[in-house]
Amino acid sequence: MSAPPLYGGIEAGGTKWVCAIADADGKVLATRVIPTTTPETTITAAVRFFREHRTLAAVGVGSFGPVDLRTGSPTYGHITATPKPGWSGTDVVSPLRAALRVPVGLDTDVNAAALGEWRRGAGRGLGTVAYMTVGTGIGVGAVVNGRPLHGLLHPEFGHVRIPHDRTRDPFAGSCPFHGDCLEGLASGEAMRRRWGQRAEDLDDPAAWELEAEYVAHAVMNLTYALSPERIIVGGGVTKRAGLMGRTRARAFDLAAGYPAISALTDRAAMDEYVVSPSLGDHAGITGAVELAMRCFA
Amino acid sequence: MSAPPLYGGIEAGGTKWVCAIADADGKVLATRVIPTTTPETTITAAVRFFREHRTLAAVGVGSFGPVDLRTGSPTYGHITATPKPGWSGTDVVSPLRAALRVPVGLDTDVNAAALGEWRRGAGRGLGTVAYMTVGTGIGVGAVVNGRPLHGLLHPEFGHVRIPHDRTRDPFAGSCPFHGDCLEGLASGEAMRRRWGQRAEDLDDPAAWELEAEYVAHAVMNLTYALSPERIIVGGGVTKRAGLMGRTRARAFDLAAGYPAISALTDRAAMDEYVVSPSLGDHAGITGAVELAMRCFA
Ligand SMILES: Nc1ncnc2c1ncn2[C@@H]1O[C@H](COP(=O)(O)OP(=O)(O)O)[C@@H](O)[C@H]1O
Ligand SMILES: Nc1ncnc2c1ncn2[C@@H]1O[C@H](COP(=O)(O)OP(=O)(O)O)[C@@H](O)[C@H]1O
Ligand SMILES: [Zn+2]
Ligand SMILES: [Zn+2]
Repeated sequence: MSAPPLYGGIEAGGTKWVCAIADADGKVLATRVIPTTTPETTITAAVRFFREHRTLAAVGVGSFGPVDLRTGSPTYGHITATPKPGWSGTDVVSPLRAALRVPVGLDTDVNAAALGEWRRGAGRGLGTVAYMTVGTGIGVGAVVNGRPLHGLLHPEFGHVRIPHDRTRDPFAGSCPFHGDCLEGLASGEAMRRRWGQRAEDLDDPAAWELEAEYVAHAVMNLTYALSPERIIVGGGVTKRAGLMGRTRARAFDLAAGYPAISALTDRAAMDEYVVSPSLGDHAGITGAVELAMRCFA
Repeated sequence: MSAPPLYGGIEAGGTKWVCAIADADGKVLATRVIPTTTPETTITAAVRFFREHRTLAAVGVGSFGPVDLRTGSPTYGHITATPKPGWSGTDVVSPLRAALRVPVGLDTDVNAAALGEWRRGAGRGLGTVAYMTVGTGIGVGAVVNGRPLHGLLHPEFGHVRIPHDRTRDPFAGSCPFHGDCLEGLASGEAMRRRWGQRAEDLDDPAAWELEAEYVAHAVMNLTYALSPERIIVGGGVTKRAGLMGRTRARAFDLAAGYPAISALTDRAAMDEYVVSPSLGDHAGITGAVELAMRCFA
């Protein structure tokens, strides 16, 4: 009898790649964190880690992006235009497949996190779940009927436009493309540029009131756009004590009870609707391993 | 041998119900338009129409809403809170099923229109398609991987918040819940209230410039939220000559080339991305018939 299969997962971020090996139950047996340098060095280091272990059945990658997910596209698995130097046009799938000789599953970092939380975290048992990260940037992933949401490319919800009252907040926004889109107003990077200090060092209550306003707009626009059964909000900025609570309160007010679903009409139900990831920082890698398993589904 | 099956469809709107009978190829054999009065009178008239014909295999309903689509919910098939007098809490499914003794498929009016265009119109062959109507109100439906998008309830994209420059447009918005949400700013009703005349009578170029701005925001937020392969924009307001063209031009500018997909980087591709319904006003009824056929899928 052969040994039970092992699966590899990569949370491929712009700063670091987190690699993990898990058993068929999703239990993580080993991990390694690799700094994101050049594509070649980074991918080679990931391959080296996986080779230190017994042969894997498949590898799953949750990648920073934008990344081409259209199977059949000539640039499938390539990171498209990214500000990250050296990475535009990088194929993150073929080198792994060639070196490890196993199937490679791919999705965005945020879709992987959504999938991880849906499979083993705060989204378990639900049909449609959205995962939003408010970190250096803002991204949203979603699982609809058990499948990550794709489309023309994949959602780029960080770039939706939301109301921006320039009297209250004269900051022009930090998005290089759009200025004051959601990410340009509410990401950690936007906070740093607006206030001149890192979000973790920022104590001005007005700053956090404003941040809750923007994140609440994101939550409500996501509600009206996608109607998820739960919205999971993670990322470094949400570690700020009180931000999630303020966001829920403001989202509840913005909804004004419409439509008449309990999360929007019953303040306690809102607390169950907008939640922190129950896998904490492990949502992404959990989802990446799940992407590996799905190579055989 | 028994006769080939017939299917019934109802586009159940707040002003009128359009009923149709179609063959298994979707070819419409008979239609009737019934004014929406009280629930009982309206539903009875629809039943009478269907009874004039050979027994149907199933009936599909694309309903105004909000409507409870959660199979298993005690209020499945009920219209929930609607401003339409007499209709809040109306069960639109059971009376049809009881009277006609056939399965009844249900979805929202906009999901039905999205499904109709996806099956037989401008969305044919695509994976994810969004349909937006800009009429008296604003609604969005979507088909994701061949299935209408549901969730906690169903999307209510008309109520997303978009940028509203009160210097350019001091109108406070017409949404009874939110004031200046998308519908509150850009629906036909919003135009009537802002300008004091019906949209079809309005010739001020500034009014249509502003309308294109808002519809372009809707198109781009939908792009970033859902990443559909095509956005089909219908509804009475879009009949205005020039509006669709202006909307595409403005959406292209708002996108600023991000992400680098052809619709957002190549102005000609944008013309194929944001389109009018190829079924014209028949998208909804076509989708309703499709909902009937899906009772057996
Ligand atoms: N405790 C904290 N409170 C507020 N902001 C924080 C905190 N910790 C990290 N951040 C901010 O979160 C961002 C980093 O987000 P994170 O999700 O950790 O990584 P990334 O988005 O880069 O993958 C930075 O902008 C940082 O300033
Ligand atoms: N040719 C036109 N140009 C601009 N607006 C129009 C035109 N025809 C109808 N409208 C507007 O469209 C709205 C009605 O939209 P429609 O899609 O026909 O119905 P509904 O949304 O009520 O189902 C009204 O607000 C009306 O003023
Ligand atoms: Zn942006
Ligand atoms: Zn509204």
